[in-house]
Amino acid sequence: MKSSMPKIVTIGGGTGSYTSLSGLKKYPIHLTAIVNMIDDGGSSGRLRDELGVLPPGDVRQCLVALSESSKLLRDLFNYRFEEGELKGHNFGNIFLSTLEKQTGSMKKAITEIGKILNIKGKVVPVTFDKKSKLCVDLANGKTIEGETHIDEVEKREKRPKIVKAYLKPSAKLNEDAKLAIKSADYIVIGPGDLFTSILPNILVKGMPKVIKESKAKKIYVLNLMTKVGQTTNFKASDHIKALEKYLGKNVLDFVFINDKRPKKTVLSWYSQYEENPVEDDLGDWKNNFNIIRKDLIKDVILKQNPVDERRRSIIRHDSDKLALQIFELIINS
Amino acid sequence: MKSSMPKIVTIGGGTGSYTSLSGLKKYPIHLTAIVNMIDDGGSSGRLRDELGVLPPGDVRQCLVALSESSKLLRDLFNYRFEEGELKGHNFGNIFLSTLEKQTGSMKKAITEIGKILNIKGKVVPVTFDKKSKLCVDLANGKTIEGETHIDEVEKREKRPKIVKAYLKPSAKLNEDAKLAIKSADYIVIGPGDLFTSILPNILVKGMPKVIKESKAKKIYVLNLMTKVGQTTNFKASDHIKALEKYLGKNVLDFVFINDKRPKKTVLSWYSQYEENPVEDDLGDWKNNFNIIRKDLIKDVILKQNPVDERRRSIIRHDSDKLALQIFELIINS
Repeated sequence: MKSSMPKIVTIGGGTGSYTSLSGLKKYPIHLTAIVNMIDDGGSSGRLRDELGVLPPGDVRQCLVALSESSKLLRDLFNYRFEEGELKGHNFGNIFLSTLEKQTGSMKKAITEIGKILNIKGKVVPVTFDKKSKLCVDLANGKTIEGETHIDEVEKREKRPKIVKAYLKPSAKLNEDAKLAIKSADYIVIGPGDLFTSILPNILVKGMPKVIKESKAKKIYVLNLMTKVGQTTNFKASDHIKALEKYLGKNVLDFVFINDKRPKKTVLSWYSQYEENPVEDDLGDWKNNFNIIRKDLIKDVILKQNPVDERRRSIIRHDSDKLALQIFELIINS
Repeated sequence: MKSSMPKIVTIGGGTGSYTSLSGLKKYPIHLTAIVNMIDDGGSSGRLRDELGVLPPGDVRQCLVALSESSKLLRDLFNYRFEEGELKGHNFGNIFLSTLEKQTGSMKKAITEIGKILNIKGKVVPVTFDKKSKLCVDLANGKTIEGETHIDEVEKREKRPKIVKAYLKPSAKLNEDAKLAIKSADYIVIGPGDLFTSILPNILVKGMPKVIKESKAKKIYVLNLMTKVGQTTNFKASDHIKALEKYLGKNVLDFVFINDKRPKKTVLSWYSQYEENPVEDDLGDWKNNFNIIRKDLIKDVILKQNPVDERRRSIIRHDSDKLALQIFELIINS
């Protein structure tokens, strides 16, 4: 380990980054969370459409994860209205959007809220381009536009395989994200949904090159479960191949994969959505990265929020287990 | 002046208290702003109806007035949405209401926001009773229920005189308000609309007795202009009589009245609403209080906010002039 505090950059979306950052912030490291900006559903989508702001939801989750303020304040930012015209909005989303409207700058909004929440580290949107939408082309020649539409799969819908993902129009890489990656010692990609949380970062123009050229060790944290309509039947190697298609080959230095089987009750809950544990098939696969297999999970039954129409997964990476593994890797490398 | 910092309690609503507090906070005094809780229109009314919270608008104005934080944060709290489903809401109102929902307590919400806004002093709701409505009986035997309905007068509506004002159901005095008044050195009543800002405080059960028994010097700051449908044609003495009807006689020690004539353009703007400067007829009136006549006004043309359906007055007390007069009185008494 270097004598000065190592610089870690995480790349992802809201929920996955929340997990990794919540654990990592307990260690003596410099943290920068790079967050995608393509959320167009739910509270974020409504604010984006109505106020013309950037989607605040994923940024909010990262800010709360890095917060060292009182539980009351952190809970406030995650507070979700369950009635009236504000129903479905998170308070923190409204806070971010209001500050962005008032100051005319998402960057300033993040800085101000960072002060109020007393955050450890930085939250950096991967881009400030508001118009970029995530699109995927399917094997049947059809295209799905918009993160929400990609995310939501009708029950019993047999969606063809995704053959290509892209941003339309293309998005410009935020200079602050570039600088953070350039000076990073470690880059942690994931956890998070491959197509809707991870790739929207990698698809930003110039991002693969900046990551590749960074002297940082690159870590990919594999998801625990497949995601219906996106990574159905994907094994570990399929995830990595899909990532490498956009990131480039021989970029990753470490791959973290969970080796603890989730509980049966949890698996049966997932199976109704045709989602299964990501199978570890990396043993036979020739590659240039180190594979780290550990118990990384936390079995949780999340309360289904009645006003949230989006389904939330009930199994998560354990933020402390994951952060410990990352920190041990830092110490030993 | 006593050697310790004098304790000042202001009693009023949003706009008037904002004016007095903005000036008073610059002096070495302990400030407590007691605020009425009967606002049932606009952003406050919507939040009250939809979330079942106390009306936040007047509290917000007092918090911002007492804030010693950055202009950015103060502006944020007053930020008013002009589009989308949040149109007409002030961000600060949403902030207060969310915290009240989350903590289950307006008192806690005020404390937390007070920290964020770094306020000098305290903001104390006169009551925490949510169901109390302001009602007025008119000379024609009709009753108007609800602050908004009392406040809004149709053009050319000839409303009969108000003969009685009351809260229905009656409201319980907040213990913190009681304590602040008991230990106050000075109580400043007003400025603010007599029926919709000042009296809703005095009408709270037990309030007149607590004020009367306080050793504090009681100051009444007379309004600058009459208010259509409420104090039409009221002279200074009419205001005081109406206040004394509920507060009791021989309670006031000082009455502040502006002696500078507003500009003609301003007066003609008001005359379209049948509103006129409050005439000073106190010279011939036998009473037990001291009358302080000073230039207390600031001629301002407020931009009419397009999303705010409520009319705002364009003439105000000058917060610095008013605070200086109050502070001079404190020093000399």
